[in-house]
Amino acid sequence: MTARHPGELKRPVGAGLAPDDDRLLPAEPTLRAIARELYQQIRELPLVSPHGHIEASVLARNERLPDPATLFVSRDHYVTRILHSQGVPLEELGVMPADAGDDAPGPPSREIWRRLAEHWHVLRGMPSRLWLEQTLESVFAIRTPLSSATCDAIHDELEDRLGRDEFRAGALFDRFGLEVMVTTDSPLDDLEHHRALAESRSVGRVLPGFRPDGVVDAERRGWKDAVERLGEITSEDIQTYPGYLRAIESRRAFFVSQGGTSTDHGHATPRAEALDAADAERLYAQLRAGAGNAADAERFRAHMLMEFARMSCEDGLVMQLHAGAVRGHDRRATARFGADIGADIPAAAEYVRSLRPLLERHGHDRGFRLIVFTLDEAAYARELAPMAGYYPALLLGAPWWFHDSPEGLRRFRAWTLESAGFYNTVGFTDDARSFPTIPARHDVARRIDSAFLASLVAERRLTLEEAQETAIDLAYRLPKAAYRL
Amino acid sequence: MTARHPGELKRPVGAGLAPDDDRLLPAEPTLRAIARELYQQIRELPLVSPHGHIEASVLARNERLPDPATLFVSRDHYVTRILHSQGVPLEELGVMPADAGDDAPGPPSREIWRRLAEHWHVLRGMPSRLWLEQTLESVFAIRTPLSSATCDAIHDELEDRLGRDEFRAGALFDRFGLEVMVTTDSPLDDLEHHRALAESRSVGRVLPGFRPDGVVDAERRGWKDAVERLGEITSEDIQTYPGYLRAIESRRAFFVSQGGTSTDHGHATPRAEALDAADAERLYAQLRAGAGNAADAERFRAHMLMEFARMSCEDGLVMQLHAGAVRGHDRRATARFGADIGADIPAAAEYVRSLRPLLERHGHDRGFRLIVFTLDEAAYARELAPMAGYYPALLLGAPWWFHDSPEGLRRFRAWTLESAGFYNTVGFTDDARSFPTIPARHDVARRIDSAFLASLVAERRLTLEEAQETAIDLAYRLPKAAYRL
Amino acid sequence: MTARHPGELKRPVGAGLAPDDDRLLPAEPTLRAIARELYQQIRELPLVSPHGHIEASVLARNERLPDPATLFVSRDHYVTRILHSQGVPLEELGVMPADAGDDAPGPPSREIWRRLAEHWHVLRGMPSRLWLEQTLESVFAIRTPLSSATCDAIHDELEDRLGRDEFRAGALFDRFGLEVMVTTDSPLDDLEHHRALAESRSVGRVLPGFRPDGVVDAERRGWKDAVERLGEITSEDIQTYPGYLRAIESRRAFFVSQGGTSTDHGHATPRAEALDAADAERLYAQLRAGAGNAADAERFRAHMLMEFARMSCEDGLVMQLHAGAVRGHDRRATARFGADIGADIPAAAEYVRSLRPLLERHGHDRGFRLIVFTLDEAAYARELAPMAGYYPALLLGAPWWFHDSPEGLRRFRAWTLESAGFYNTVGFTDDARSFPTIPARHDVARRIDSAFLASLVAERRLTLEEAQETAIDLAYRLPKAAYRL
Repeated sequence: MTARHPGELKRPVGAGLAPDDDRLLPAEPTLRAIARELYQQIRELPLVSPHGHIEASVLARNERLPDPATLFVSRDHYVTRILHSQGVPLEELGVMPADAGDDAPGPPSREIWRRLAEHWHVLRGMPSRLWLEQTLESVFAIRTPLSSATCDAIHDELEDRLGRDEFRAGALFDRFGLEVMVTTDSPLDDLEHHRALAESRSVGRVLPGFRPDGVVDAERRGWKDAVERLGEITSEDIQTYPGYLRAIESRRAFFVSQGGTSTDHGHATPRAEALDAADAERLYAQLRAGAGNAADAERFRAHMLMEFARMSCEDGLVMQLHAGAVRGHDRRATARFGADIGADIPAAAEYVRSLRPLLERHGHDRGFRLIVFTLDEAAYARELAPMAGYYPALLLGAPWWFHDSPEGLRRFRAWTLESAGFYNTVGFTDDARSFPTIPARHDVARRIDSAFLASLVAERRLTLEEAQETAIDLAYRLPKAAYRL
Repeated sequence: MTARHPGELKRPVGAGLAPDDDRLLPAEPTLRAIARELYQQIRELPLVSPHGHIEASVLARNERLPDPATLFVSRDHYVTRILHSQGVPLEELGVMPADAGDDAPGPPSREIWRRLAEHWHVLRGMPSRLWLEQTLESVFAIRTPLSSATCDAIHDELEDRLGRDEFRAGALFDRFGLEVMVTTDSPLDDLEHHRALAESRSVGRVLPGFRPDGVVDAERRGWKDAVERLGEITSEDIQTYPGYLRAIESRRAFFVSQGGTSTDHGHATPRAEALDAADAERLYAQLRAGAGNAADAERFRAHMLMEFARMSCEDGLVMQLHAGAVRGHDRRATARFGADIGADIPAAAEYVRSLRPLLERHGHDRGFRLIVFTLDEAAYARELAPMAGYYPALLLGAPWWFHDSPEGLRRFRAWTLESAGFYNTVGFTDDARSFPTIPARHDVARRIDSAFLASLVAERRLTLEEAQETAIDLAYRLPKAAYRL
Repeated sequence: MTARHPGELKRPVGAGLAPDDDRLLPAEPTLRAIARELYQQIRELPLVSPHGHIEASVLARNERLPDPATLFVSRDHYVTRILHSQGVPLEELGVMPADAGDDAPGPPSREIWRRLAEHWHVLRGMPSRLWLEQTLESVFAIRTPLSSATCDAIHDELEDRLGRDEFRAGALFDRFGLEVMVTTDSPLDDLEHHRALAESRSVGRVLPGFRPDGVVDAERRGWKDAVERLGEITSEDIQTYPGYLRAIESRRAFFVSQGGTSTDHGHATPRAEALDAADAERLYAQLRAGAGNAADAERFRAHMLMEFARMSCEDGLVMQLHAGAVRGHDRRATARFGADIGADIPAAAEYVRSLRPLLERHGHDRGFRLIVFTLDEAAYARELAPMAGYYPALLLGAPWWFHDSPEGLRRFRAWTLESAGFYNTVGFTDDARSFPTIPARHDVARRIDSAFLASLVAERRLTLEEAQETAIDLAYRLPKAAYRL
């Protein structure tokens, strides 16, 4: 940040906040004063991260984080996609063809970092820039603005920091005030790293998250093998549909025994549909035989969503649904580079009829809880908030993926508050892919929620005391409670 | 446009504003000053309520209003739904199973009121809280904030007030400055209460609203019986489709004779489609024989929408369309507790092709007027505002149901203004279910429109004089004119 | 404008801006100061107009502009539609039945102008009013507010100005600072006026825009004849599908030789779909034989979109897609008065699956560029911004038609920025139908973008320097670069 923000000259002397502390807070003085008061009170609250994509192994081994480019560019599809949109080939960003093998040499970290700096202006106003800028500053104490002129020096500084013990994963976990973090794990995972972490008590709680897509979605590469492996691990006969279900239930029980409190389901659509036992069995057999088409796979996922809801009623795991992305929209690039290159594109989603069978059957079950995330904001006020404002079991997940951003967070609150309230949402959850950016993501959300609550106070829709309590709930209490952490 | 309006006469001289009078007005001082000036001029304007769910009998008998819980909780599905979403069983809110009979004892009013108080935080930021808070304060002079600690005392105060004559329905009607109120009535209703009210002149105008869904929608329970009854009342032969149409026309004429000026149609979708006479006759016979499916019922509603438009062209009744809700989304609960428990959920709606046949045929007819309400805000800027900005007969209804709220009202203006203008909308209408909250609902809309207009003045898109005139039009003149009141 | 704007009192003395210069800038002083600084720097930048509906002949002949009503009302469907929505017959606005012939006498200009003045309040808050008001003031030096009392005098003044040489098209072109303007032309056009303009160098660059809908869309009246004529002009055998393609390619080459840099495609939907050569040939023959239905015509358009993308890869013409309008929604009026009477209505559009074949095939091709415009704002954040933030070839067009307005421009930025950034958009383009309003349309966009950027600066999401650079890019550099001008 430069010293030339016009607003700075106007900052009241002795306000007690450094200039950057007003980031994302409203410009209007009355609103800003309220927002500051709310934010001051929640900024240092512990972080609760009930869903994300950091590997437990990184923490179990207390690994050094990788080089700057791998950490902040190559593995973060939010960043690679936007540079790619400006014509930078994925290989130049360290995204290598899948068949090149793990040891295929990508460009040196410094080269990739330069690409980022050259295109830094393209990220203006985008959340990735906010997160990265704030992470460089608050985690790595680098205050120089990124540019082609400064990128080499910044890369040197980052490499230096990343080489030190106080920047290893475990040290950062503590420093970030992470109270609990949930990972995303396959049912086939033996959770050895989670067990090691639990035994060593080296960092705060790191819990497994049960993500069964790989053994449920027949359209995924390797589905059949994954189901075979599921059978081996559980000693269940997955040749039969009842055996398949028992195998899944068995792995859920294992996750529960390792501290797991939630499952996560990434489906193309939110469709839920209960087949009768015979139809389900037949469909499973057909898909196992490789004789199913896309519609069959969709029907099976829809049916399994019902099964997972039933299982959640039984074992108490909180159920998350992330629906609505067309995965690998660019099939040629996906075939070449694999998934997670940023080529997933949201599509319109329908929740009212799709979720009806599930909510009618389990929406009132004591102990059942379904947290729904969407990429289709048109569904916020029209479908999801009204449904969450009726069904006891349904909660709204935080703005997800493309919408985890200042404007996206604002729209979420403005479009869901009046039909669902604050207390049918789960507060903020981060979905981070880059470990050091976790605090920045929470900080952005805390600022935006403070600003939003400030507007309610200024408009006399809430008292300041209520807003203070709500701010703490959104940042800390609601995610803990919703995910049973 | 005339310079005379009721508000000028009632405008308080030199009114200072108490702090709460800034509720919902913008925090920024320039905007707030303009918004205050606009609001001051319209706050005391008479209320025009051309659509709502208050029974005429309540006024004709000048009834005492029921106990606090019945008045503000049990009968208001906006409130029961949100408490239910937090796990409170409907029975604990006084919503009793339909087969329990009318005399089934629900919990005492005080108990229900305590449930509300315990969950009061859940309503933070929701319109029901705004309305209720403002109603307690301005109608019942109760300024204590609701909480578990205060709820018993507030309940006592409310019971005391509700027992007094000055809180009977008729007295409140006068005190509210209600100039005219339209009820929602079945074609089978004999309108005795409306007639009694007209004869006694005890309160301002209370007019009947013609809502024929019960005799049109073959999917409604009791449709066949309702049609039979329609035949009896009108002495028309409803065994034939022409007789059925004549019976409906006869009841419309009766409503007109009793002062009615509008009809209202609550359809699952806005689909309109003219069948030829033979097809219509066949479809009617099929549905009467109980041999139709859901698609047949939908086609019949679509056809009847065309018939109703034709009738409106003939008898001058203004036609309202409320479309897009999936009624009774939770079928088990609806079967148990009946409709109006808060389990209706909006769904995506399509207006462009659906309304085309109706608008092409009647959209230019002098004297015909169609007012469309939607639950799908995505249609505001994309479909409805462009259509209302072209067809003379089409007007946009106020934000409806889930969207009758501060943010909902703002989105409506911001998303429709630029394609439809202010003058293809009908201003504010309230759709209230709880009689004492009517003034609060109008007040919220008047504040939000004042704030919205203030932003146009501040951005020099309107002069202050224009904004003043427009504010009066939105609050008072447009609904009167649109509904021919 | 009246003297009663509250903001006026607060205007800093000697700030160097006349009051009206704050139009559309935020009221809050910190934001306003930043927005002013940004706007001051771009307000006088040359205008780049890469897409619009002004005829080259008007400039080639340096015509006098027509009378006030023709110029600002009769030929501007934004204006006729809204007056029509209030019950003014199209004929009274100078929109004459198509079969009446070109010489059919419409009402005198003064009468039409009076109709506009009588209904001036209906345009409150609508962009047409903003543009017209600003055009009257800044182009014609008329500061009197329009009303029934002033309209005759204003009409006199306008007629006087329009009669002078300095208000001829060429003089205005210079005065407006129009650096380059692209027209919308049929492939059948011989571009004589463009050639004459290029030779005379009388005004800045006026380039042809290749709009082939008339020879591609089999549902258009006269399609078959247009294709015949295409064959004659190019001496290609359009009886065969390959000949038809060669004929189109030949005309593209001609447009390129005359300075053309872009094509434009106005399709009912964004669907793209590659047929194999035999199917395409068969479909073309079928449509030529008049044996195709609407679905066939749609499939042919979808296929031709793929062909046009291929051609663009070969000849470098930038491809624009304007999709999603139901043209002539009111078929009776369209049959009577022709197209462009304001009866076109947007409908929901689907981009993710529709554009997938095109983007998968050409989305990475160096030199290929597709600019997509939409009327369905729900697609901004959900579909278009994520796609533009991935595919190198895809850019987002400016808010189009109903959304080229203050609120529409704001929504576009707020809803696309965080997934697409600024640099995957093309900045502002005007789509004007009335030549003198071009500067006003650009001015509105420059103000709104300044205000939007100011909020990012105030919230410390951008430095002032970055905002300054971005403002210039949006107003000037991006459209030039995107359209290769």
